[in-house]
Amino acid sequence: MDAGRLSLNQITVNSLSLEEAVEGCVRHGIGGIALWRDKIAAAGLDRAVRLVRDAGLRVTSVCRGGMFTDPATSPADVLADNRRAVEEAAALGADTLVLVCGPLLDTDLAGARRRVRDGIEALLPHAAAAGVHLGVEPLHPMMIGVRSVVVSLRQALDLVEEFDDDHLGVVVDAYHVWWDPDLAAQLERAHGRVLGYHVSDWKPATTDLLLDRALMGDGLIDLPQLSARVAGTGFTGGVEVEVLSSALWREDPDDVLTRVKQRFADAV
Amino acid sequence: MDAGRLSLNQITVNSLSLEEAVEGCVRHGIGGIALWRDKIAAAGLDRAVRLVRDAGLRVTSVCRGGMFTDPATSPADVLADNRRAVEEAAALGADTLVLVCGPLLDTDLAGARRRVRDGIEALLPHAAAAGVHLGVEPLHPMMIGVRSVVVSLRQALDLVEEFDDDHLGVVVDAYHVWWDPDLAAQLERAHGRVLGYHVSDWKPATTDLLLDRALMGDGLIDLPQLSARVAGTGFTGGVEVEVLSSALWREDPDDVLTRVKQRFADAV
Repeated sequence: MDAGRLSLNQITVNSLSLEEAVEGCVRHGIGGIALWRDKIAAAGLDRAVRLVRDAGLRVTSVCRGGMFTDPATSPADVLADNRRAVEEAAALGADTLVLVCGPLLDTDLAGARRRVRDGIEALLPHAAAAGVHLGVEPLHPMMIGVRSVVVSLRQALDLVEEFDDDHLGVVVDAYHVWWDPDLAAQLERAHGRVLGYHVSDWKPATTDLLLDRALMGDGLIDLPQLSARVAGTGFTGGVEVEVLSSALWREDPDDVLTRVKQRFADAV
Repeated sequence: MDAGRLSLNQITVNSLSLEEAVEGCVRHGIGGIALWRDKIAAAGLDRAVRLVRDAGLRVTSVCRGGMFTDPATSPADVLADNRRAVEEAAALGADTLVLVCGPLLDTDLAGARRRVRDGIEALLPHAAAAGVHLGVEPLHPMMIGVRSVVVSLRQALDLVEEFDDDHLGVVVDAYHVWWDPDLAAQLERAHGRVLGYHVSDWKPATTDLLLDRALMGDGLIDLPQLSARVAGTGFTGGVEVEVLSSALWREDPDDVLTRVKQRFADAV
C-alpha cells in the first residue's frame, strides 16, 4: 500500500501518550493518526487539537462512539456521551467517528440490536449537524459479549442502508471481517459506504480474544486482496494500522513504528 | 427440551473412557451418546460397538471426519482417513458423521474452501454406499486457523445444496452459529437438511477460543428460541450436549452428568 495512506491507530503503540504518538508519527513520516478517547481525555481536547494540527497530521478517526446496548444505561445518557464523542471528532477534524455498537449483556440479542439501531437514529442528526461521519464497525463475532452485537459487514450495511444518510457508513477492519464467506459480495454492495479501513493480521493460533492480533504479514489474512476489494468500493482515505497486541505493547514503540511502516508497504 | 432427546457428546466428560461414558449414560438414564474417534480407537471399534449396543444407546454422531484443507496431506490420504471414519460410523449405527472441515494454513482461503468442497465430493459416494450421513458443521469464525474454514450456516448450506444428496446435510451447533444475524433466515432455508443439533452456551467474557464453553443456561444464547427454529427445519433427532470446557473437565463427571440432564430440561 502507498505509504502516503498510512495512518497510525494509536492503540498499536498503546504505551505512548497522545503527544508521544504524534511525535512518533512525525519522526517516522506517518501522515495520519487515529485517536482514542481515553488518550484525548488524558491530553485534554484543546491540547490534542493543537498537537495534531501543529504536527500536520490528518486524524482519520476517533475511537470510539457507540456502546448503545446496555439496558442499565438510559438512552439519554448514551446519547449524551456519544454527542461528546461527536464534538471531539469535530474539533479534531477527524474523518470518522468509529461506532463500536456495544455488547450483548443478556440473552435478548434482537433487543440489543434494536437498541443499536435506535441509538444510531438518535445520534445521526447531531453528527450531521457537526459535519461528522459515523462509521459502523462490525466486530469479530467472538467479541459479541464484550464489544459489539454488530458482527458482519452485511449487518452493518443493512443498518447503514436503512438510514441512507451521507453521514453514516461502515468501517472495514480486516481482522474483524476477513473470515466471512460473504465478504466479497458485501464489499461490492458497499460502494460509497466505506468510511474507514483498518489493517492488522490474524495469528494462526490466536490465544486471546482481544489482544492477540499480529502485524500485517504475520498471519492468515490475504491483505492485498482485501485492499483491492476495499479500493473497489471507492474508498481512498487513510488506512489505519490497528494492532491490539499485548506482546507488541511490550516492545519498544519506536521499533514497532519502523515495522508498521515496512509491513504497510510490503504486506497491505 | 424433552429428556428423551438428550444425547451426551462424550467430550463433555472428556476424562471418561468410552466405557465409563456409556456407563454414565445408563446410570443417568441418558438415551444417546456421541463418540469421538480417539476414544473409539482407545476402546477398539468392535468393543465400542458392543458397549453401546449392550447399553441400548443411540449413537447420534461420530466426531469427526473432515480436515480436508492441509495442502501437505494428499487428497488420497485425506480420503482414506475419512473412509475409515465412515466405516466406524456405519459399524456404530451412528446417525451422522460430523465433518469438521479443516483450518486455513496459509493465506489462500478460497483455495482451502475449494479443498473442502472437493473432499466432500470424493467422500460422499462412500458415505452413501455405507448408509452414513455426513453433517457439515460450520464452526465459529474464531476457529478458522485451527479447525474449520466453514464458518457460517449459509456457507454450509451452500455446500450442501451444491451436491443435493440425501446423505449430506448440516450440523447446527448453537455455540458456533448463535451470533449470526443471518441465522433465522438460514434455518428457514435449512428445512430437511439438518442432521444434528448441539447445545452448550457462550460465556459473557470468554477467555479461551476452544475450551471455555458454558453449560446451557449459563451464557448469552437464547437456546429455547434456537431450539424452536431448529425444530422448524423438521429435525427430530437426538440433541447433543457438547460442552468443551477445561473447567468442567476438572469437576466430578457424575456431577456434570446430573447438571447436564437438569439444564437440558430447563434451558434448552
